[in-house]
Amino acid sequence: MNINRDRLLARLDELGRVGTSHGPGRTRLALTEEDRVGRDLVATWMREAGAQVYIDSIGNIHGVLRGAEDGPPVMTGSHIDTVNRAGALDGCYGVVAGVEVIAAIHNAGVLPDKTMVVTAFTNEEGVRYAPDLLGSRVMTKDIGVAEALQLTSTDGEHCGEELRRIGYAGDYTPWDFLPGVFVELHIEQGPVLDTRHIPIGVVEGVQGYSWWKISVSGRANHAGTAPMSMRLDAGAAAMQLANRLTERSVVNQSPSVATVGTFSVEPGAINVVPGKATFTVDFRDPSDEGLEQAEVALRRSVDKLKDAGFTTTMECISRNSAVTFSDEICKEVAEVAAERSLPILRMVSGASHDAQMLARVCPTAMIFVPSRGGISHNPEEFTEPDDLVNGAEVLLGTISRLIMRRTSTQ
Amino acid sequence: MNINRDRLLARLDELGRVGTSHGPGRTRLALTEEDRVGRDLVATWMREAGAQVYIDSIGNIHGVLRGAEDGPPVMTGSHIDTVNRAGALDGCYGVVAGVEVIAAIHNAGVLPDKTMVVTAFTNEEGVRYAPDLLGSRVMTKDIGVAEALQLTSTDGEHCGEELRRIGYAGDYTPWDFLPGVFVELHIEQGPVLDTRHIPIGVVEGVQGYSWWKISVSGRANHAGTAPMSMRLDAGAAAMQLANRLTERSVVNQSPSVATVGTFSVEPGAINVVPGKATFTVDFRDPSDEGLEQAEVALRRSVDKLKDAGFTTTMECISRNSAVTFSDEICKEVAEVAAERSLPILRMVSGASHDAQMLARVCPTAMIFVPSRGGISHNPEEFTEPDDLVNGAEVLLGTISRLIMRRTSTQ
Repeated sequence: MNINRDRLLARLDELGRVGTSHGPGRTRLALTEEDRVGRDLVATWMREAGAQVYIDSIGNIHGVLRGAEDGPPVMTGSHIDTVNRAGALDGCYGVVAGVEVIAAIHNAGVLPDKTMVVTAFTNEEGVRYAPDLLGSRVMTKDIGVAEALQLTSTDGEHCGEELRRIGYAGDYTPWDFLPGVFVELHIEQGPVLDTRHIPIGVVEGVQGYSWWKISVSGRANHAGTAPMSMRLDAGAAAMQLANRLTERSVVNQSPSVATVGTFSVEPGAINVVPGKATFTVDFRDPSDEGLEQAEVALRRSVDKLKDAGFTTTMECISRNSAVTFSDEICKEVAEVAAERSLPILRMVSGASHDAQMLARVCPTAMIFVPSRGGISHNPEEFTEPDDLVNGAEVLLGTISRLIMRRTSTQ
Repeated sequence: MNINRDRLLARLDELGRVGTSHGPGRTRLALTEEDRVGRDLVATWMREAGAQVYIDSIGNIHGVLRGAEDGPPVMTGSHIDTVNRAGALDGCYGVVAGVEVIAAIHNAGVLPDKTMVVTAFTNEEGVRYAPDLLGSRVMTKDIGVAEALQLTSTDGEHCGEELRRIGYAGDYTPWDFLPGVFVELHIEQGPVLDTRHIPIGVVEGVQGYSWWKISVSGRANHAGTAPMSMRLDAGAAAMQLANRLTERSVVNQSPSVATVGTFSVEPGAINVVPGKATFTVDFRDPSDEGLEQAEVALRRSVDKLKDAGFTTTMECISRNSAVTFSDEICKEVAEVAAERSLPILRMVSGASHDAQMLARVCPTAMIFVPSRGGISHNPEEFTEPDDLVNGAEVLLGTISRLIMRRTSTQ
């Protein structure tokens, strides 16, 4: 059994052309007309591969290849909705490769012990509907179907109505498809594999994140008339704090990464000492302890500013615990890569994926392939064709092992 | 001879009510209808004080009290245009107190040796027309009259036409009023006198300033997937640079003060490592050497960022050399304060004033009075009435000495 290289690459290209009319890149936000066109393509390809296609009530598309046994299926999948001006691979790669895996197994003419499903999850990116990971959240009951269908998009459209409009309001109950194992194939979206020239990442978990908005208020002053010793410069104080937070990650990897992505000062004039500064910090760590330590350090630094006479506020914008994937499934992936003489790196995902929702209900792992320069959410997103094929082969090998194993022998 | 305390305070209050209809504070931008009302008041008060009023071609209002000798006059003055939502004292205090000085001398019935002039200069603040200090620049030939009259305001109005519209396009040549000595009375606009409880500042000069806009470009990255070691975080790099620049002033007063008043990052998302950061720095120092050292340190730090792989730009937005006032005139002011048992502090002005233009053409000094909390350019601007009267008395004493001294005895 092998992946059909040419068809995999051609289909990624074909799906990647949907939503490019207002380039650069493609914009195929969830439940838009562009999403419908992409979904129709994927559903067609699933049927061509030999799968039966089911649409559930949150619009997840399931391509099912029946096995001999009853019981929960082995699932792979990802998403085909995109961010604005996206690359062609984020999400799509896992769905299109999953379809090729079904095709390869179906074409081999063997009856697997277990049922296999490839799923395209609804609204993973969360650009048009919040929260993100919507399809996998509903399937794992993190959010109710009724609640999800009531969501309103950023452009004011009702989720349930948009699903009906594009023809993807299905009758099936999402959790009827809950798998026994889940494996998601995805581009890394970071620079690690590319920089180290390693073709396969075995993903052991997803970093947790903790997002904070911090404001520091001091006293605005004339930049010429206020001596340094009499200032309460909110801008300088906030910059020192922000630097301390990112430096902890540079020096001690505590937390693993920290980013100050927004920073503004008021009143914001060249000759006025800032009276107020507001910034955000994004902490990520593979362990919840790492996040908690970062939060403690943040609180301590903010308290020091209070002692120095500043007024401060701290608001937690969003927080997600770290996710640990199944060591057993990671080992399967590693063994399959070894059989193919593909070097691997065990790593943690910095970005969110549907797999982190599935990990709550079943043994889960992810497979990463290199992203050139670590660039993603950008038309420049690129992975070498050989790497795309290697990743799909590793997915095929892993899924084959999992579906060819009778429950009684586990 | 004494200052009429009640009238001084009442007139500051009356002038301070012009332009308050769209409060908070008063907004009396140069050459607006509000400015006209304020100018009419001041011209009326000048005449009541016994002065002849002349309007020059850039709209400066000169109240002249003739002395026995010919030759250049002794001048005091300031401005009555304001910033948006201003206090009542910035500029107005020097003009209104100058009118009271003329009134006191005129009422004393003595013929001074020298002619005295109190001048209200046009467009000192520079909010509506750039450059600032326009009236004193024209008078000292820093900018030509024709060029000044061609300026366009921020709201698109021609300077010469606005002068005509409000009735202040005079026939007199500005430099015909060039003084032999200039003394400007002003609120400090900084916290030094207030904090030290000293009523009179003898101002020995005006800090020079050097304004820079710096941009740092690195590489935008996903905040979750880019390890710290693989980042080129423009935001963090720019914050470190900005902190280094202000820290030099905190630790070594080199330069005297440094302010980062604006700071922005792009793309400016909580979960994206900034690819670009832009900020400004405002250096001030009483000496040009101090400014130059700050600029050298800035260049060195920016070069270090280049070595680290960042792309940088540096743009000088504005630069003004430090101004040194006349030691002789400062001594006169100090002696007059000592006669009245008023403690003084010799200091340097952090803000710009018309006096810095006059210092190019004649011996010049300034007198400061305390600003509560150092607050200015703000409706909260406040100086104790006793301090306002003390400052006016010191101005009266100083001007009296200067005009009662025959040229031959100098």
